[in-house]
Amino acid sequence: MSKEVVYTVRVEFGDCDPARIVWFPNFFRWIDAASRHFFVECGVPPWHATEQTLGVIGTPLVDTHAKFLKTASYGDTLAIHTSIAEWRGKSFVQRYRVLRGEDLILECDEVRIFAGRKAGDPTGIRAVAIPEEIRRLCE
Amino acid sequence: MSKEVVYTVRVEFGDCDPARIVWFPNFFRWIDAASRHFFVECGVPPWHATEQTLGVIGTPLVDTHAKFLKTASYGDTLAIHTSIAEWRGKSFVQRYRVLRGEDLILECDEVRIFAGRKAGDPTGIRAVAIPEEIRRLCE
Amino acid sequence: MSKEVVYTVRVEFGDCDPARIVWFPNFFRWIDAASRHFFVECGVPPWHATEQTLGVIGTPLVDTHAKFLKTASYGDTLAIHTSIAEWRGKSFVQRYRVLRGEDLILECDEVRIFAGRKAGDPTGIRAVAIPEEIRRLCE
Amino acid sequence: MSKEVVYTVRVEFGDCDPARIVWFPNFFRWIDAASRHFFVECGVPPWHATEQTLGVIGTPLVDTHAKFLKTASYGDTLAIHTSIAEWRGKSFVQRYRVLRGEDLILECDEVRIFAGRKAGDPTGIRAVAIPEEIRRLCE
Repeated sequence: MSKEVVYTVRVEFGDCDPARIVWFPNFFRWIDAASRHFFVECGVPPWHATEQTLGVIGTPLVDTHAKFLKTASYGDTLAIHTSIAEWRGKSFVQRYRVLRGEDLILECDEVRIFAGRKAGDPTGIRAVAIPEEIRRLCE
Repeated sequence: MSKEVVYTVRVEFGDCDPARIVWFPNFFRWIDAASRHFFVECGVPPWHATEQTLGVIGTPLVDTHAKFLKTASYGDTLAIHTSIAEWRGKSFVQRYRVLRGEDLILECDEVRIFAGRKAGDPTGIRAVAIPEEIRRLCE
Repeated sequence: MSKEVVYTVRVEFGDCDPARIVWFPNFFRWIDAASRHFFVECGVPPWHATEQTLGVIGTPLVDTHAKFLKTASYGDTLAIHTSIAEWRGKSFVQRYRVLRGEDLILECDEVRIFAGRKAGDPTGIRAVAIPEEIRRLCE
Repeated sequence: MSKEVVYTVRVEFGDCDPARIVWFPNFFRWIDAASRHFFVECGVPPWHATEQTLGVIGTPLVDTHAKFLKTASYGDTLAIHTSIAEWRGKSFVQRYRVLRGEDLILECDEVRIFAGRKAGDPTGIRAVAIPEEIRRLCE
């Protein structure tokens, strides 16, 4: 089990498409922000700091599975409830429930890793073992 | 079985994040464009035309599942191979394989519907039965 | 003179580019949201409502001029101070000052119009005279 | 005078807003890509290479001024004609004309600098003198 942290989003005109509903890639923009917000609220330093201390430059996605249950449109306020559903050896499952008031808009389960740079490769990344310091802060 | 259509993407500097790799929501931007491109290449008219003729305003997502296998960065050219893996009653599975040369970068299976407007609700949408005219064009 | 309204933005990891600073098109995303937020805070209804009552579907840009004075990065909180600097016959100048604490990050002057749909053209728009109801709410 | 380079853009459904026209921040996404594309076509190496050789990490904006003349919508193909209108000591004016066939959609003049990192400041940047090697390649 982990903490649950809420990230709040205002849906803007420009987030919506000609069908007048949120263009779905924007949900992933917000989920990514909610992912990082979760760690910040748990007390994990920004990635440019952890790059120096733990060699961690971020938590890139390995796998994401989202179910879109209701549409949202501009003027809506969304609450993204974020938690860690499971810790694995070199990855973890981050879970999101996007709500507008009582309405469940979207559910998403992601597998993410803690990434470090690959020696001698400016764009390469590799998974590092779950840092104990980070895991403790999230529980 | 369906046709397979390729949509080509140049990865730009601004598509990448401080870790210097593609920021993942951008993959969904491109997949959404590849989805529509598939229908255009199959001969399906633009949605503002099908809104008039078939009452179809687009193909919003119900469910998406993506696996991120390798990273990409700016300067890369990506080929998104798109097909329909399955037709269901009121939904279909659209499949994407994102390649950089021989490298498989990402796999994604989406469930989408053909959406029409809900009477008396400016932002509401509803699933319509798979239009036979559209299905035939895609096979 | 007009009211001044503040719109607050959290800069996220994904808003930044490989140079680790905000990728500039994102400033325009936020400015566009601040523009609409200004009207909402002044009491102007959402555009899907004004489309019915005043024939106004939004306030598209005619001209924008922005000066980028300092960079911003993720973790920053930005305050966008928004006002109307000038009302003209069929257009107006909307002014933005983006601040991080005391630091001025960006200044922007836009010329916008109130747009209505063009009869018989699904994507065409035309400028309408400044609606008095809207102007009064903003002053 | 400089070379003129054309960057081609397909306007997608998701680039458009509920008014069914291109949401304007997307024009700046494309202009930024056209800016870099100009340098690539002139033979300037990618910024992660020039960071090593010339200390140049990119060409951030100082000032941009755009005029929006016509709207565009999905299905359109846009050609962004890019050139350098003026070289100054530590900055340059990059000029863009966005065309759909014969129609001029947008004109934009930007002031950009060649940026290097500021010693001891992970997100700070500073202007460097116009590198002669780069200027020669563009003329």
